[in-house]
Amino acid sequence: MRPSALREMLSAGGPPARLSLAGGLPPEEAFPFATLAELASELLSGHDVRALQYTSAEGEPKLRSQIAEVLTRDHRREVATERVVVTTGSQQGIDLVGRVMLDPGDVAIVEDPTYVGALRALAPTGARIVGVGCDDDGMDTDILAALLADGIRPKLCYLCANFSNPSGATLSGTRRQALADLSRQYGFVIVEDDQYGRLRFRGEHIDPLASIAGDVVYLSGFSKVVAPGLRVGYLSAPEWLVRPIVLAKQAADLATSSLGQRLVSRLLDLPDWWDGHLALLRSIYAERADALTDAVDAQLPGRLRVRRPEGGMFAWAEILDDAVTSTALIATARRLGLALVPGSEFSVANTFEHALRLSYSTLTPAELGEAVAIIAAAFDDLGSVRA
Amino acid sequence: MRPSALREMLSAGGPPARLSLAGGLPPEEAFPFATLAELASELLSGHDVRALQYTSAEGEPKLRSQIAEVLTRDHRREVATERVVVTTGSQQGIDLVGRVMLDPGDVAIVEDPTYVGALRALAPTGARIVGVGCDDDGMDTDILAALLADGIRPKLCYLCANFSNPSGATLSGTRRQALADLSRQYGFVIVEDDQYGRLRFRGEHIDPLASIAGDVVYLSGFSKVVAPGLRVGYLSAPEWLVRPIVLAKQAADLATSSLGQRLVSRLLDLPDWWDGHLALLRSIYAERADALTDAVDAQLPGRLRVRRPEGGMFAWAEILDDAVTSTALIATARRLGLALVPGSEFSVANTFEHALRLSYSTLTPAELGEAVAIIAAAFDDLGSVRA
Repeated sequence: MRPSALREMLSAGGPPARLSLAGGLPPEEAFPFATLAELASELLSGHDVRALQYTSAEGEPKLRSQIAEVLTRDHRREVATERVVVTTGSQQGIDLVGRVMLDPGDVAIVEDPTYVGALRALAPTGARIVGVGCDDDGMDTDILAALLADGIRPKLCYLCANFSNPSGATLSGTRRQALADLSRQYGFVIVEDDQYGRLRFRGEHIDPLASIAGDVVYLSGFSKVVAPGLRVGYLSAPEWLVRPIVLAKQAADLATSSLGQRLVSRLLDLPDWWDGHLALLRSIYAERADALTDAVDAQLPGRLRVRRPEGGMFAWAEILDDAVTSTALIATARRLGLALVPGSEFSVANTFEHALRLSYSTLTPAELGEAVAIIAAAFDDLGSVRA
Repeated sequence: MRPSALREMLSAGGPPARLSLAGGLPPEEAFPFATLAELASELLSGHDVRALQYTSAEGEPKLRSQIAEVLTRDHRREVATERVVVTTGSQQGIDLVGRVMLDPGDVAIVEDPTYVGALRALAPTGARIVGVGCDDDGMDTDILAALLADGIRPKLCYLCANFSNPSGATLSGTRRQALADLSRQYGFVIVEDDQYGRLRFRGEHIDPLASIAGDVVYLSGFSKVVAPGLRVGYLSAPEWLVRPIVLAKQAADLATSSLGQRLVSRLLDLPDWWDGHLALLRSIYAERADALTDAVDAQLPGRLRVRRPEGGMFAWAEILDDAVTSTALIATARRLGLALVPGSEFSVANTFEHALRLSYSTLTPAELGEAVAIIAAAFDDLGSVRA
């Protein structure tokens, strides 16, 4: 299994960086402490047994039906409660799908760059992971079509269609339709990881693959929209996949935290709270995304090209000076007090040596400006000529 | 993967049984609702970021060091914090050990009967699971020694040394030493699952395998001594196994619930509370174990032999009338309003057709008497002659 470069960097010793664009944490100042305190107190003082006893592997029944209701609306087709499985974070969803669907020698398609946790979960199955490149419109379905025409027969295709981690790109409507068609034609399952879909702060909503394709495992959760520490994610799966996934879930951890599930279920009972909270998150993310990308455009013209995200928490950046590798830039920035993570961390085959993933979620606009100034100073230090 | 017989039974339709000796749930009336309500309120109203943000895959640092302190005392040898990994329930501990240690064709020894969740977690690795029989003194190490002498070379040996689920038996001190010696001689890892060690209500404490053996993965958690819904378990592992386990944990679910970890950590800060709570649990379990076994002795002489447990929540029962199978007894008892689970559910090779696992944890003494009366009536219905 492949360790996390970020993790290794952080444990490499030395004082922690003063600023970081490396992580993938949601902003703590938006955690709904007061509401959760109230709900936890109600549940526990009210001796809510369902908050502390084991629950079923599939998930707490009421929460499952609430999620099914949300998905039925979002996917614009009926999602039966029986197709919903609550997971210990969305990471577990990827892991369960991999365990159930992939055997050694099977092929799994992923977008490239891709979420590193997906690589970590899928690789131990022994499946061959094949990357398909991305651009501003997300995974290039023409490349995928060519691979399929060449005879590659994947069991599944994993991707983040909205504001991808790490690329920040969103799969266009045309490509969604193309991917749905390919999935039907070649008989593979689409694993649609949608952690950020509710965090669109610009541009037009595009319907999820789950609303147009056949066999889709749709993964999402509450880490990015409530708090990751609750570890409550969920998936909806085609009927034929539900039972194997539930059996794998039983073997993996019996069930997801009942307390976390009950808290989220109570939040879903508060639609007004929910609307206000998502609006708050979107405004925070929008302000920070703009602060970062504006600062890059202003301070790093000709040096760094950043993809303007329409939602989520990540922006992909390419170093335009061929003489500057991400490794050198990161080491120099680190000495100047800024942590960065290389694009190669998210690649299937250790490419992207001139790319970075920038996470703007935990810094204020002022700090983001400072961070970009440090990157500019690092370019200077490396003797890179100003454009 | 093998589904749970209990689960299948429960979902088979019809009204739920009025009484159940089938489950493995801790008693809800002992859940520390008030204390947890207070701590949750403190953590959340106090904006404790560590309760809601991601924590590291190894676990929340303070909780890890608290667990290391407990284990250093219990194992009577230094357990470094670095050897402790927090897991999403102890089930995940078994799963991670299996994923890291077992490849197809490897051999894993388990006691037979064994915890069914272990079978479910270990079987998908493709390892060959070899069962070793048990008696009142737990796993028969002579049988294991013979297997090893015959050339079987296991990677690991999984067992519950204290008040085993399902057998209720406790591995004797002599056998612990024998197992420790065999582990050293043949180079396999002992996976000591100790969910119930703190729930001894009778007899003498016996030091854990982790205090006398070489390579031991020790698994325990807070499901049985606080509440399962928090999903906080832990393991200590030999140094060489820690990193692979942590990488597998990262891939499985990134980290365990931060809220659960912080709650347990705060409880561990309250040693007096802890002493009182464990004393309460022991008294509940002792009273119920006695009520069950006394009722069996009084009402089912010559029909059912039950092993008197010294702790934990399970008693193993053997049907003494060869003409009565557990399947028939269970079906009849079910019609009379009592749920039972067959011993075969916990067997490696579908044996124990004349055995039951009786769980006494969730019924009052009066209900346990009633449950045993139903078993007696079921024997009568089946035409079994009274002894």
